[in-house]
Amino acid sequence: MSDQITITLPDGSNRTYDKGSTALDVAMSISEGLARNVLAAKVNGEVRDSFRPIEEDAELQLLTWNDEEGKSTMWHSSAHIMAEALEALYPGIKLGIGPPIENGFYYDIDFGDIEFDADNLKAIEDKMLELAREKNEFTRKEISKSDAIKFYEEKGDEYKLELIDGLEDGSITFYNQGNFTDLCRGPHIPHTGYIKAVKILNVAGAYWRGDEKRKQLTRLYAISFPKQKELKEYLELLEQAKLRDHRKIGKELELFTFSEKVGKGLPLWLPKGAVLRERLENFMRKAQLKAGYDQVVSPHIGSKELYVTSGHYAKYGEDSFQPIKTPAEDEEFLLKPMNCPHHCEIYKSRPRSYKDLPIRYAEFGTVYRYEQSGELHGLTRVRGFTQDDAHIFCRQDQVKEEFAKVIDLVLHVFGALGFGDFTAQVSLRDPDNPDKYIGKDEDWDRAEREIQEVADEKGLQTVVEYGEAAFYGPKLDFMVKDALGRKWQLGTIQVDYSLPNRFELEYVGNDNQKHRPVMIHRAPFGSMERFIAILIENCAGDFPLWLAPEQIAILPISEKYHDYAKEVYLQMQEQDIRGFIDERDEKIGKKIRDAEVKKIPYMLIVGEKESADGAVSVRQHGEGDIGSMKKDEFVGYFNNKVAELIK
Amino acid sequence: MSDQITITLPDGSNRTYDKGSTALDVAMSISEGLARNVLAAKVNGEVRDSFRPIEEDAELQLLTWNDEEGKSTMWHSSAHIMAEALEALYPGIKLGIGPPIENGFYYDIDFGDIEFDADNLKAIEDKMLELAREKNEFTRKEISKSDAIKFYEEKGDEYKLELIDGLEDGSITFYNQGNFTDLCRGPHIPHTGYIKAVKILNVAGAYWRGDEKRKQLTRLYAISFPKQKELKEYLELLEQAKLRDHRKIGKELELFTFSEKVGKGLPLWLPKGAVLRERLENFMRKAQLKAGYDQVVSPHIGSKELYVTSGHYAKYGEDSFQPIKTPAEDEEFLLKPMNCPHHCEIYKSRPRSYKDLPIRYAEFGTVYRYEQSGELHGLTRVRGFTQDDAHIFCRQDQVKEEFAKVIDLVLHVFGALGFGDFTAQVSLRDPDNPDKYIGKDEDWDRAEREIQEVADEKGLQTVVEYGEAAFYGPKLDFMVKDALGRKWQLGTIQVDYSLPNRFELEYVGNDNQKHRPVMIHRAPFGSMERFIAILIENCAGDFPLWLAPEQIAILPISEKYHDYAKEVYLQMQEQDIRGFIDERDEKIGKKIRDAEVKKIPYMLIVGEKESADGAVSVRQHGEGDIGSMKKDEFVGYFNNKVAELIK
Repeated sequence: MSDQITITLPDGSNRTYDKGSTALDVAMSISEGLARNVLAAKVNGEVRDSFRPIEEDAELQLLTWNDEEGKSTMWHSSAHIMAEALEALYPGIKLGIGPPIENGFYYDIDFGDIEFDADNLKAIEDKMLELAREKNEFTRKEISKSDAIKFYEEKGDEYKLELIDGLEDGSITFYNQGNFTDLCRGPHIPHTGYIKAVKILNVAGAYWRGDEKRKQLTRLYAISFPKQKELKEYLELLEQAKLRDHRKIGKELELFTFSEKVGKGLPLWLPKGAVLRERLENFMRKAQLKAGYDQVVSPHIGSKELYVTSGHYAKYGEDSFQPIKTPAEDEEFLLKPMNCPHHCEIYKSRPRSYKDLPIRYAEFGTVYRYEQSGELHGLTRVRGFTQDDAHIFCRQDQVKEEFAKVIDLVLHVFGALGFGDFTAQVSLRDPDNPDKYIGKDEDWDRAEREIQEVADEKGLQTVVEYGEAAFYGPKLDFMVKDALGRKWQLGTIQVDYSLPNRFELEYVGNDNQKHRPVMIHRAPFGSMERFIAILIENCAGDFPLWLAPEQIAILPISEKYHDYAKEVYLQMQEQDIRGFIDERDEKIGKKIRDAEVKKIPYMLIVGEKESADGAVSVRQHGEGDIGSMKKDEFVGYFNNKVAELIK
Repeated sequence: MSDQITITLPDGSNRTYDKGSTALDVAMSISEGLARNVLAAKVNGEVRDSFRPIEEDAELQLLTWNDEEGKSTMWHSSAHIMAEALEALYPGIKLGIGPPIENGFYYDIDFGDIEFDADNLKAIEDKMLELAREKNEFTRKEISKSDAIKFYEEKGDEYKLELIDGLEDGSITFYNQGNFTDLCRGPHIPHTGYIKAVKILNVAGAYWRGDEKRKQLTRLYAISFPKQKELKEYLELLEQAKLRDHRKIGKELELFTFSEKVGKGLPLWLPKGAVLRERLENFMRKAQLKAGYDQVVSPHIGSKELYVTSGHYAKYGEDSFQPIKTPAEDEEFLLKPMNCPHHCEIYKSRPRSYKDLPIRYAEFGTVYRYEQSGELHGLTRVRGFTQDDAHIFCRQDQVKEEFAKVIDLVLHVFGALGFGDFTAQVSLRDPDNPDKYIGKDEDWDRAEREIQEVADEKGLQTVVEYGEAAFYGPKLDFMVKDALGRKWQLGTIQVDYSLPNRFELEYVGNDNQKHRPVMIHRAPFGSMERFIAILIENCAGDFPLWLAPEQIAILPISEKYHDYAKEVYLQMQEQDIRGFIDERDEKIGKKIRDAEVKKIPYMLIVGEKESADGAVSVRQHGEGDIGSMKKDEFVGYFNNKVAELIK
């Protein structure tokens, strides 16, 4: 047996090290600067402590703050430091769990009878920074179940004991840093000194194990950074995000609302929001008409049998909205969680020939999926939403071309809506969980290959994620970056070899034999609700001209010109240019200032001269006066501006 | 006590008769010809035998074949004659019920072990006519319950015995004609001789008392007429109606389909049907935008609490789709049977001032109402349908004006869609059932009065029907006559004083006090599904130009011009003119003939000359060649034609 191991780096290069070397050793051998930044390491695909010895040949990726897993590791370690700080400040507390999350980390604490001073979070932050400066090393220890139980019995922490109870002997690890030891799978950063800035963001209640019948613990949300400057930037981003929060802007601009009585997570679209939706839908309808789609309309429920056939019932049944019973015992319905089963039945409504394909059924289909009320968030996490859905039924030899056309459509949408910065995620099966998926392996293999080929051919910047596929097929998801640099998942395209089998879809080929079509699911916006939320946050409510719910404000100089203002209003309405007349008894300067605040793209001022000439004096939002135009002329000017934006 | 009674006729005139005179006597005193046509009489609002003595002063209306109640009486008597004929031909049969229906009558028969010859219905018709020619008089007898039971025990008819079991003593009447006696409330025609033509239309199975656990009887549907000629006309109408059946045309033109798996009564709109719907919706959107409506969008479910508040749950709960349970025990939802509760919650989303009113919320809202599967019929009786719904919230002083504006909108719709022949039905409370209705009497009184006033002011031809109001308010329903003279209920307008109370809707008046707004529900189409069904049957699938799913057929002379055809196609598509290119390898004559059969309004023929000139040779459906036009010219021509239709 050799004492040497071969380490393969992401660039494909091989290096030889002593057996038992760590990822940090490898980093150090490359450069000391690199080593200072290594937070964790991916060894043969598994994220591990950078200080854990490597005993065999391995593929190694060093993880820094620039990698999601690197960030996540540091936040996980920060949670341990927060727990240590809390134990120092509040001796006798009991600990729940403390995981990293998307932005930062939390720890659930049972303060028992100890009074927690939620107004002095700075004391905790200071203590954390003090512990960080100590550069305490993280150490990992495998431990027997009985020893783990003994440890927490001595400490008197029933939460950890309950967690240990669910673990198998042999898989239990403890991590220690400074005066703190925690039951933990890891991995962790080498020592606490990597953490240079911390901020406790929020204190909330959280039921132990998410079960509202159990005790409510105190959850402290926090975030940490390797540089003070990054924390500052993050807090500024949070401030900006707060200003752009679609729930805030949606309320200010009267776009949508919620009502407890209608139900949580079920948005009610107010008139201006409905206009916005309608414009987006019409934009998509037009693009889809050009791209050869046919609109269809299907109901919002289907017999339970339909979803048993589709597999959705088996997949979602228990956690979702329950079946709708009827006075007839043999008839049960379900709220539709997806439109595809209905579209399959439309496909089946008559025999199809190879000459009929591709068939592209599009529908703005509103679907309902149950989410726990705690999970709901504005328009981004709702219980009912409208997909800009479509299903393409095509021959095997058409799959790639259809997929390519959908990518073109998605790019057209992103272009018209100002999302220039995006990546595409190819979501494939989880190789460790093959049973999660419906359908044949060979079909999956083929679909996964074709998605990657066509994405490459279209020059998309792609990331491949294993385990992120839908249960019925692999998919390509687009992630856009908004004005604040935040990433959002938008449009999705999915190949599906499963539903055509389940619904026994067929077409007659030119060989006169029956064949099974392939299905492609796609939704460039994803959902109207989520898309509009992102759009609002991206443009901070300052919508592109063609989308603005109120595009013009007609401002009469005085009451004398109200009739002419009305005439202008009606002509604009006829041309689908929307707005309002400001008939208040206010000075024109005040009317202009108010319209500017409301971000109305164009102000049309009408007085003596304008009404005599059949004209309007035009002011552009943020630009000022752009001169007088005849009414027709303004319509042309306006339409050209819109055409420039959406081509 | 006087021996004379005063009879007041519908024209207000009074006449004096001997006490105990019959309606026939009154008719005879006016003219013998009139008397020959009297089938029944309305005495103080109650329909009775024309041969029943009148003992007190009364308002009297003589009912003939021209009155619905006159027809209905004759059909009821015809059912008795059919039963007499059946007993003569099939001695030993047992009888269920035999009522008049909308078009004709039926009788439910238990043939027991007797073999029924469904192929020889003519024998029954002949026997009925034979009995009719006998001019057997109908006589009425009040009878005690014990005598009634005795009669049917002797006859051995358990069905009639079961019916008698449910009756109160003293309210039981028997009618007799010829050799037939029947338990019956009446009224009936004077004698069988009025019936000159009969036709058995259909034989079907029907569960006793509509209960599928009871025995299935044989139901014979039939119709009768006072003239042979009218039967002939009716049968011709039936033939025409069959050709126009929207289910047949919907299938032929591929407008919609149903799937057992999606569920009965849940239409799936195919591409061409979806285009038709979209065009109708856009037409209505545009009209509503002009009329000052705001579109809103609300979910298809609401919390059960919402419908408890609205009163719909108490009203529809048991017989409808049952509540949707969720994994959280305290959250239950219902499929929305109406959009109004949602719109009330939108109204409530912010404080309202008298200056904000009227607020008009419009939504193409899809609602779900359970119907028994046996009641479903094509698109006219479904379980899910889209209302062109709107709710107007206004001040008391605005009610009449708003109501008037809605009537204008309805008339605009009827005009654009070719429904020139219509009446309006004012549906008021059933005075005998005041408890059926939600809301205060004084509010109802006011609403009922205002509906009638405004209908009169608009010059509508109205009929007042008591007992036809919705449970939450009185309404005005429009009944149109289609091309076959059949009546259909379409648009509805309803005043509602109840929901604003239940939802505690408010506005601040110019007196700075809180007031309750009034609500008006309205839907000019009624439901998209039902309206389209009627539209199809009215125009037999030959839709007005602007609605036709396929408006043009582009017919290239040969394959050489396919590229130019495509160019024409794209330009037309850009202008929202829909159609297809006939790229088959067929002679142009054949292509034209096929497009004529498909009733495509315009055929655009393209060949050498047209492609050189950027032109199309235009043929109009049913008219032939209307000459060559440049492409742009055709677009203008086409749009003018549409504008003429929908203004």
